[in-house]
Amino acid sequence: MSDDKQPLQAIRWDEDALLLLDQRALPMSSVWLRLGSWVEVAWAIRVMVVRGAPAIAIAGAYGLALAVQEGADRAVASAGLLAARPTAVNLRAVLERLAGLDDEALLTAACAEHALDVANNRALGQAGVALLQDALASRKGVLTICNTGSLATGGHGTALGMVRSALAAGVALHVFALETRPYLQGARLTAHECLEDGIPCTLITDGMAGALLATGQIGACVIGCDRVAQNGDAANKIGSLGLAVLCRHYGVPFFVAMPTDTLDRDCADGDAIPIEERDGDEVRQVQGTPIAPAQVPVWNPAFDVTPAALITAWVTEQGVWRLPFPNG
Amino acid sequence: MSDDKQPLQAIRWDEDALLLLDQRALPMSSVWLRLGSWVEVAWAIRVMVVRGAPAIAIAGAYGLALAVQEGADRAVASAGLLAARPTAVNLRAVLERLAGLDDEALLTAACAEHALDVANNRALGQAGVALLQDALASRKGVLTICNTGSLATGGHGTALGMVRSALAAGVALHVFALETRPYLQGARLTAHECLEDGIPCTLITDGMAGALLATGQIGACVIGCDRVAQNGDAANKIGSLGLAVLCRHYGVPFFVAMPTDTLDRDCADGDAIPIEERDGDEVRQVQGTPIAPAQVPVWNPAFDVTPAALITAWVTEQGVWRLPFPNG
Repeated sequence: MSDDKQPLQAIRWDEDALLLLDQRALPMSSVWLRLGSWVEVAWAIRVMVVRGAPAIAIAGAYGLALAVQEGADRAVASAGLLAARPTAVNLRAVLERLAGLDDEALLTAACAEHALDVANNRALGQAGVALLQDALASRKGVLTICNTGSLATGGHGTALGMVRSALAAGVALHVFALETRPYLQGARLTAHECLEDGIPCTLITDGMAGALLATGQIGACVIGCDRVAQNGDAANKIGSLGLAVLCRHYGVPFFVAMPTDTLDRDCADGDAIPIEERDGDEVRQVQGTPIAPAQVPVWNPAFDVTPAALITAWVTEQGVWRLPFPNG
Repeated sequence: MSDDKQPLQAIRWDEDALLLLDQRALPMSSVWLRLGSWVEVAWAIRVMVVRGAPAIAIAGAYGLALAVQEGADRAVASAGLLAARPTAVNLRAVLERLAGLDDEALLTAACAEHALDVANNRALGQAGVALLQDALASRKGVLTICNTGSLATGGHGTALGMVRSALAAGVALHVFALETRPYLQGARLTAHECLEDGIPCTLITDGMAGALLATGQIGACVIGCDRVAQNGDAANKIGSLGLAVLCRHYGVPFFVAMPTDTLDRDCADGDAIPIEERDGDEVRQVQGTPIAPAQVPVWNPAFDVTPAALITAWVTEQGVWRLPFPNG
């Protein structure tokens, strides 16, 4: 696989509408939705047609452009988009950058944010190549959770972008993707993306991570993040914390791929990060099929917080960060 | 809930046939299968109509009685039943006890094994009450994986039997059941059994265990086991090892409910325990619904091995064991 091959795309602007690849239906079917208003974009973010902190931010930027196009109140649209999913912070960073622009400049700026995300992903990926090369010298397995590839971003990817860049640089590796219940981003999206893009990949359930680490095949774990506090605590897909504890136990480095937009300098530590809780039916059902009694109580946090002490390094488009963060 | 209330049952003998509640269909439907030959029983064990090491052993004992009834070769039937699932060892212990008996005594002996399992479960449960009382003094959450209740045994249960006994003894507790992918015994069976039997229960996905432990609600983790080595290493449902590592990290006691039939004195340590690998479609699909690309490679071990060093105590029908095991 060459780094120049165009990976899967999930976000496109088409004249006067935002096209989103409906990630709820992948990989069983590829359905593109055409959204013509900011309210539709907020809906698409909330129900996870589009997901992944960087992809949400890009969709939100186009959503604001749609608000201008339809003559809606920009402040209302901005607040509505921001409220669609509370944990990820990248959208806030992008909306803040767009806030000062004139109406006519918004669409161009949204396109520029989209292109910037891809460029940042590639820079982040390059920054991580040496880390992965060292970590995978004797054990070529890379453990990952959720989807952090081109489907979660403007292209390329964050954690999976590091993998993509390392592979392009000739690092021998094999991805082990956690299926990532309840929403199955690993099984549905990462497995699909790896197959499509020629990245060697084996799918496991979330509970198999311990057994896999115990085999000694894993040289590194790479995850994305939805919000990182100033002290390095990282909110990411539910299950990340357990992975970090396991990696510490087995002496495996744990890398967080973090576009700097994901850093929230207003959050001192992880306790200040709001954690979205989603509907219990996401746990009681899989793709609409019931798998548990309909009346059983469920706890369904979408994210957990990994303490900085369990994180080996934060990989950004500006290079590899350790604590304390630059300009902290 | 009183300890005298009859919990859910999944195994019955009816004149000349073995009745098994088809656990593949629970909780969506309750279907009883009528099996008239040992080959059907071996099939039922292999495809997980019946599962749980003690329940497999009881079904196997009745299967041997069926072999006699149909005039089949006892040695062939015994070997065939034993081969149906390789990791659990309780069936071997039961078949060894039955091996010396005359044909006419087999059915009565199988019924006696069934009754003995329930009696042992109740003794094990009682032995665990004081442990749980102490562990849950300030944090009432009990984390568990898979199904270890009456559906996994002749009645009552092992790890869930401890919970049942503790609840009957007045210990305030709340079960958090891991859904237990890929086969979803937690979501389908434990959640169902808890609702049926009035045991307070919340269902979570396997990846949520870390976040739950981090909240400080969990006072103990109780699991069953399929084979325990002489040094205390315990093979149990995939995901158990990860739970044990998490419990150690968060300082939560980790108890293995172990009928002594589960102890394999021929296994010096966990490395000697054979781990069954099952079909990858169990991971690629949920209840027949595809959730991943059909061609993605999968690793699907049914069990993992938790090292003795991560286990706080082994609870048996003979009392609470610590290392070294009695008569080791």
